[in-house]
Amino acid sequence: MSKKIDCTTRILTNTDVSKILTFDLVIKAVEEAFKLYSMNKVQLAPVVSLEIKNADGEVDIKSGYDQENELIGTKIASGYWHNPKNYSLPSSLATIVLQSGQNGVPLAIIEASAITNMRTGAAGAISAKYLARSDSKKIAVLGTGTQAMMQILALEEIFDMEVVKVWGRNPERASEYINTMKLKSTATFMKSETPKSCIEDADIIITTTGSKVPLIQKDWVRAGTHIICIGADMEGKQEIDEQLFEDTKVVVDSLAQCSKRGELQHAIQKQVIVDIDVYAELGEIILGNKVGRESLSEITIFDATGLSIQDISVAKEVLKSAYKQNIGFCLPFI
Amino acid sequence: MSKKIDCTTRILTNTDVSKILTFDLVIKAVEEAFKLYSMNKVQLAPVVSLEIKNADGEVDIKSGYDQENELIGTKIASGYWHNPKNYSLPSSLATIVLQSGQNGVPLAIIEASAITNMRTGAAGAISAKYLARSDSKKIAVLGTGTQAMMQILALEEIFDMEVVKVWGRNPERASEYINTMKLKSTATFMKSETPKSCIEDADIIITTTGSKVPLIQKDWVRAGTHIICIGADMEGKQEIDEQLFEDTKVVVDSLAQCSKRGELQHAIQKQVIVDIDVYAELGEIILGNKVGRESLSEITIFDATGLSIQDISVAKEVLKSAYKQNIGFCLPFI
Repeated sequence: MSKKIDCTTRILTNTDVSKILTFDLVIKAVEEAFKLYSMNKVQLAPVVSLEIKNADGEVDIKSGYDQENELIGTKIASGYWHNPKNYSLPSSLATIVLQSGQNGVPLAIIEASAITNMRTGAAGAISAKYLARSDSKKIAVLGTGTQAMMQILALEEIFDMEVVKVWGRNPERASEYINTMKLKSTATFMKSETPKSCIEDADIIITTTGSKVPLIQKDWVRAGTHIICIGADMEGKQEIDEQLFEDTKVVVDSLAQCSKRGELQHAIQKQVIVDIDVYAELGEIILGNKVGRESLSEITIFDATGLSIQDISVAKEVLKSAYKQNIGFCLPFI
Repeated sequence: MSKKIDCTTRILTNTDVSKILTFDLVIKAVEEAFKLYSMNKVQLAPVVSLEIKNADGEVDIKSGYDQENELIGTKIASGYWHNPKNYSLPSSLATIVLQSGQNGVPLAIIEASAITNMRTGAAGAISAKYLARSDSKKIAVLGTGTQAMMQILALEEIFDMEVVKVWGRNPERASEYINTMKLKSTATFMKSETPKSCIEDADIIITTTGSKVPLIQKDWVRAGTHIICIGADMEGKQEIDEQLFEDTKVVVDSLAQCSKRGELQHAIQKQVIVDIDVYAELGEIILGNKVGRESLSEITIFDATGLSIQDISVAKEVLKSAYKQNIGFCLPFI
């Protein structure tokens, strides 16, 4: 006898997802994701990319299998930097197909640009929860794009921030950033003229630019700081002096990914540290297998490249809520 | 000024797609796909796979970019061999996300198990059109699964077949195959006891099994035969004696893929031939850059592993028809 199963596939648009997503939900799901990853309950396929040269775009495909929840997730994420100007469309779009690990049935097809943005913000905030000083109040952000916003909004769930200083290559964009963020956050936002003046009295530094050269020198960073490295997520990208990896507590989302695509790649290439000097994957700390911050003075670095399991865990929670609240459109897809 | 574009995404279920798909449409689209591929107008990302061990399943993700039509396609195909027994579901399922190459907008999300089955059938038939003797009437099929059906149905669009002999490991399944095919085809179907008796007087041989050992010996194959190798599409799989690759006209869908995953892998590993002895990619013959069959006596082999561009080209035609006939469900996905 074969089991009767529900073969309906749920389609969740960007509007549907935005009714469900909160940073609270996303942070919980991403903590769970990092835990599963460090418990070896996750299979990740290699990330593949297509470069669309004639339109200055790219597509990245991240897929994985969550053994614990028997869910397969594939995210197709595109980045087209001229979309806002040329088409009044977001530069980043993403689609997740979530399948049953038991039989491959597509359970949900989800517009995932908000999931991508928020799960990346959540990763930084979770790292700060375990690695930043608990009284952190002064935040520095390099960059003025989506992640410069997401990181702050996620951090606000965990810290009482007082001041956020922002630096961007384009001062106009920095002003726009501040105007937008004032409406979303209770912190005070200030524009900095240079990366140095932005970060020198910060408790937490967040780097979210597309830079390929270091913007932060080692001797500018004071003791006790936590640095969240977001921008460097592929070969060649770099935002901080690789010498900063010496004598600091280095935590990564995935050692395999960060040593190839993360900020860590440069420290390893220049032999500042070797793989085994990396203190922990964030999941090990969340699980309690390793401790987070151990003194008020240590400098900590979190290097994030983004894992498929973050998308899968958040998509799972979104689907659960959609089911309960009857959000989205269900159809017999297969 | 930014251009106004249509951001609606079309969802096409299996039922929707089956209203549109015909072998005529698929064969034309796949010929086009092979042409584009051999004109270097296609970028293919590496195929990635996830093995779902606890359920004896796997997921393969094939993606590519059609530069000519500015379309990005990603297909997530799953194979769960116990689905029919355990869940009364097909073992193979697939979802294609088709995106604009100009801005990444998902144009369509398509249930693609029928597209996968038919585009694979079409590839074999197209190879026979250029490589089999034009008076081919006797067909031999090894295997009794979906591709054993699809190859014959596609071939029937091009050839007046008289007899189809079928051999399968499981004689009961071979009988079931014949009963099903009698309803769909005008040819006479006959069951063979052995691979040898199945193929020895055939004009066209088609191999569609999951075998990992050769089922056909070199000296069983008579002059003038065309062999279509479908089953061997990953490392370790093999259906024909690798010595058959000596002194035959070998044509592949993609040299890069076949030398690693196709029937060709064994001939290359055992040094029966080297890469440059492969006569052509099928697209080169369709384009007229190389000739197909040159004599009544030569033995020709077509080795197919399946290309993402086949999926993209068929999906493109399906979407066009859906648009014209108002099939499917449109929604503001992004």
